[in-house]
Amino acid sequence: MINITFPDGAVKQYEDGITSMQIAQSISAGLARNILASKVNGEVWDLSRPIHKDASIHFLKWDDAEGKSTFWHSSAHLMAEAVESLFPGTKFWVGPPVDNGFYYDMDLGGQTITESDLDKLEQKMKQLAKQNNPYIRKEIPKNEAVSYFEKKGDEYKLDLLRGLEDGHITFYTQGNFTDLCRGPHIPSTGFIKGIKLTSIAGAYWKGDEKNKMLTRIYGVTFPNQKELDEHLAMLEEAKKRDHRKLGKELGIYTIDEEVGPGLPLWMPNGTIIIEELEKLAKKTEEDAGYKRVVTPHIAKESLYLTSGHLPYYKDSMYPPMELDGVKYYLKAMNCPHHHKIFAAEQHSYKDLPLRLAEYGTCYRYEQSGELFGLMRVRCLHMNDAHIYCSRDQFAQEFKAVNDLYLKYFKIFGIEKYVMRLSLHDPAKLGQKYINEPELWKETEEMVRKVMMEAKIPFVEIKDEAAFYGPKIDVQIWSAIGREFTLATNQVDFAQGKRFHLTFTNQNNEPETPLIIHRAPLGTHERFIGFLLEHYAGKFPVWLSPVQVKILPISDKFLDYSKSILHKLKNSDIRTEVDERSEKIGRKIRDAELMKVPYMVVVGEKEMNEEKVAVRRHGKGDEGSFPVDEFISRIRKEIEEKI
Amino acid sequence: MINITFPDGAVKQYEDGITSMQIAQSISAGLARNILASKVNGEVWDLSRPIHKDASIHFLKWDDAEGKSTFWHSSAHLMAEAVESLFPGTKFWVGPPVDNGFYYDMDLGGQTITESDLDKLEQKMKQLAKQNNPYIRKEIPKNEAVSYFEKKGDEYKLDLLRGLEDGHITFYTQGNFTDLCRGPHIPSTGFIKGIKLTSIAGAYWKGDEKNKMLTRIYGVTFPNQKELDEHLAMLEEAKKRDHRKLGKELGIYTIDEEVGPGLPLWMPNGTIIIEELEKLAKKTEEDAGYKRVVTPHIAKESLYLTSGHLPYYKDSMYPPMELDGVKYYLKAMNCPHHHKIFAAEQHSYKDLPLRLAEYGTCYRYEQSGELFGLMRVRCLHMNDAHIYCSRDQFAQEFKAVNDLYLKYFKIFGIEKYVMRLSLHDPAKLGQKYINEPELWKETEEMVRKVMMEAKIPFVEIKDEAAFYGPKIDVQIWSAIGREFTLATNQVDFAQGKRFHLTFTNQNNEPETPLIIHRAPLGTHERFIGFLLEHYAGKFPVWLSPVQVKILPISDKFLDYSKSILHKLKNSDIRTEVDERSEKIGRKIRDAELMKVPYMVVVGEKEMNEEKVAVRRHGKGDEGSFPVDEFISRIRKEIEEKI
Repeated sequence: MINITFPDGAVKQYEDGITSMQIAQSISAGLARNILASKVNGEVWDLSRPIHKDASIHFLKWDDAEGKSTFWHSSAHLMAEAVESLFPGTKFWVGPPVDNGFYYDMDLGGQTITESDLDKLEQKMKQLAKQNNPYIRKEIPKNEAVSYFEKKGDEYKLDLLRGLEDGHITFYTQGNFTDLCRGPHIPSTGFIKGIKLTSIAGAYWKGDEKNKMLTRIYGVTFPNQKELDEHLAMLEEAKKRDHRKLGKELGIYTIDEEVGPGLPLWMPNGTIIIEELEKLAKKTEEDAGYKRVVTPHIAKESLYLTSGHLPYYKDSMYPPMELDGVKYYLKAMNCPHHHKIFAAEQHSYKDLPLRLAEYGTCYRYEQSGELFGLMRVRCLHMNDAHIYCSRDQFAQEFKAVNDLYLKYFKIFGIEKYVMRLSLHDPAKLGQKYINEPELWKETEEMVRKVMMEAKIPFVEIKDEAAFYGPKIDVQIWSAIGREFTLATNQVDFAQGKRFHLTFTNQNNEPETPLIIHRAPLGTHERFIGFLLEHYAGKFPVWLSPVQVKILPISDKFLDYSKSILHKLKNSDIRTEVDERSEKIGRKIRDAELMKVPYMVVVGEKEMNEEKVAVRRHGKGDEGSFPVDEFISRIRKEIEEKI
Repeated sequence: MINITFPDGAVKQYEDGITSMQIAQSISAGLARNILASKVNGEVWDLSRPIHKDASIHFLKWDDAEGKSTFWHSSAHLMAEAVESLFPGTKFWVGPPVDNGFYYDMDLGGQTITESDLDKLEQKMKQLAKQNNPYIRKEIPKNEAVSYFEKKGDEYKLDLLRGLEDGHITFYTQGNFTDLCRGPHIPSTGFIKGIKLTSIAGAYWKGDEKNKMLTRIYGVTFPNQKELDEHLAMLEEAKKRDHRKLGKELGIYTIDEEVGPGLPLWMPNGTIIIEELEKLAKKTEEDAGYKRVVTPHIAKESLYLTSGHLPYYKDSMYPPMELDGVKYYLKAMNCPHHHKIFAAEQHSYKDLPLRLAEYGTCYRYEQSGELFGLMRVRCLHMNDAHIYCSRDQFAQEFKAVNDLYLKYFKIFGIEKYVMRLSLHDPAKLGQKYINEPELWKETEEMVRKVMMEAKIPFVEIKDEAAFYGPKIDVQIWSAIGREFTLATNQVDFAQGKRFHLTFTNQNNEPETPLIIHRAPLGTHERFIGFLLEHYAGKFPVWLSPVQVKILPISDKFLDYSKSILHKLKNSDIRTEVDERSEKIGRKIRDAELMKVPYMVVVGEKEMNEEKVAVRRHGKGDEGSFPVDEFISRIRKEIEEKI
């Protein structure tokens, strides 16, 4: 008999050699139908693999990241089976799951697959899926594996085999297809119901351009057709909302080759959004008792040696500039600079919590290949702040930060979000984690309590904390359901000591403050990228670069238009007049394209009645209103951020 | 006979060998009494030096920078004469004029001079000055000069002589003192009436710490005692107003060795001033039709090659960072980035003028020895903007920029200022200046006309323009009469072409815009440094980091104090409560020290009457007022920036 420990801590005895699937069935048939794989002692396993010793078990479903990736990996095998049956003689390299699906790299020999073949392949996959063939795992001696692929003449798998040790080699077979594979896999092909092959691309073998170009087919699959349809609709919508496309069309930002990749230049319209976000952050932070600071973008090497960013973070930093024999680095984070401001004055417990905020601009090196519009950049305008507090003050401060996140979610209409509480692993104290067991326990418990009391949805993840304390990663979903990692909220025991920061406590002794690192709005780059998609470029009035566009029907009404412009501007409403001699239809169309929330059409009738004819973006005509009434309406929308 | 040309263009004939002094006397005895030296064919000469060929002449008075420096150089000789008479055997190295006076470096042999000797030396100088000895110039062959100093055993002057060519060596003698010197000098020692030796310091010979330490004595002199007294009073006041001292006391900024020299970190109080200045600039610029942009702090080398900053400006830039085989530089100016934003979109004449503004942070390399508090730094937050306009629009735009300067001068109570219009030299077209003779003439005339029509005091200086166009340097004087160079306002014909910037003109042809570079508030660093001195740290209410400090007489009145705090904060008045259990006298003293403009004392009477007892900084008690009345008063001062 072996002992199986469940996630809730319960332990049950089972016969030696029992499989995860059998354990699930012993609990309920419903559970058994819904699981794709299991995590046995922290490792993802096939449900059909026998367990021979005491183990912890955790069943993986579609909603688990590891459940999904197992599903997509098995789908890659299914696709390979379909390719082999329609394009016999194809040799396969590797077929991993990726963020949104899977791919397989293959050598088609003399054959070619085009976009038009994808449909045929999909049909074949569906047919094979219906056969509901099990994925069968087989441990195999190395020499047998080698001779199998030698017989097939498959130099790719032979290359893979050269890197593997005897005793660790497994084959997986479903239907007529057998692959060298470490696994794990879902139980059988029948689980795969929604199937879409999305694209074909070329990919050099092993990513090396001196090697042969292989064919890469991308696909995505779901446990049912409905979810696939929703996913495809979301992708279609995401394409329309692509922040790079909207960013150009709406004059938000530009990237110039001569300035450099990953270094966006913010155009006037983008800068208005930046300034509105900063205004919001500054007001919010002022009300919450933060003080603002401004720090330079560079510092001597020694500062980053003190902070520990050098050498550990060096690969993500720009290379140094050497001046007067001293190395200077562009800052990749603001914390060391803020710590120096804390250190510049003496503090007593009465001055704490001290909350130092800065929209600091940091520079981080990302590989050129990783750069992506505003989402992956090298220049980051960060909604940063550091809170220096005593242990007594910690819980309240941490809660206040979480409240800030929630306040922002509400303002921006972010309805779906999740916080991941990353904890330390007691086994790694003193190695991966600073050796303060009590402080870890204390702050983790404090953080957990704050989250639970605030009823914030969160998941706990062990062994993913920062080395200096627990942290919370915040994930949000855009209006069309795409996931974004927004920001982290971190507790820090270590930096205070490294920088010799102290305050005089109530006993008149020097004490090291705890530090909270937080950036609820993340970076302008990523957040505005997110907002572009989230709002499809149709920003709420308070964020819109142009809030009202006045459209005179003809030049005759230019003077009246300008008098309205003047009134609106005096009420701090960003307004423009379309002075072109174009037809009104064209003026309306252009304002709609620029996603201006309010258009005001001005003609004979409006001028005589001292009114404006109001059009709402995407909704059309809303009738005529006296100018003052219109102004009050807009001001209300701006002030209430609706 | 020779022809002498005067500054107004008049030409007169004089006998060959006439001196500047004789020419002045031929004009008027008053003039002759008031001049110190002359500029002959652009070179500063002794008034007693004979002129042997046709020449232009310009008499130099005390108010001319070159008049002053000649006066101070002669004063250094006078000091040396005094030293030699009181400390015989002293050997002299060099004695140049500096910004505010002069110094002389000397080797006293075994003797020492202390601060207490300075008075004695001053008396000696006054006595020698009264003798009114002329400064006599003598050209001397090199071998005679060498043998003179060999006889004296003066290795310092012999060292200087080694670097000089025969035929270019002159001695100057006044009274009993003879020095190797290029000159020029004032006519005689009697001109020097106000004399003050200010300090003694050590200085390595030739600035090299491996050499012997010489004694350096600093002094300053004036043509009369009254001006000296005013100058010394100003220095005394300037010491109290030293921006480094006030910057520390008021929590404005700090410089941290580990971050780096010349890189101020702005503390919370300094950041409030920064934000108020930016708010002012943004509002002013918005009203003036500017659009804001945000650009990264780095760019590829190629951008600065296009702009021409590399290689010409390289010494003032931080060294490059090499990334993926490409060199990146920290930006030393914002213009190339703004040009790229202009270039990112197509423009028609209807879009012009386009005014792009950014409080851009630039980095410039200054020698460590040159760094000075906030005045000479390596990190500059610049009130920058670039105006792209057609020639037709130029005059109006340039005038609008000047109006901006004047508006700011008024807000900050800057009563004395002067603008220096730097012009090109037609002889250097194509070399020092871009070869567009018509454009030079046209824009210089436009600029001159704008200045004259606006009745702005300005001086014209030939051959000091930027290579791409005329510029205006703005000099301002602080409340205690110290001069600061604030900013420049430049016209630019060249960058537009270098960056291939165009707009479509009315004839539907591409045309290169003119560019105006402007930064009326200069940099935060220099401007706040100036303001600290100008206001002696007593900022007007709108700029004060804390505008009102509430001082409860005892803890009993804390609740009432907080209710007032709440009201004031709701009216956007920066307010703090002094919650310490200190006596009211101490609380008042501390608030005075922090130069808080308004203190509000709260006790039994105030609480019962729902009033506040108001104290104005430096003025004392102003009586009791209802809270709302007090709020209105402060709001008025904030809004009117008084």
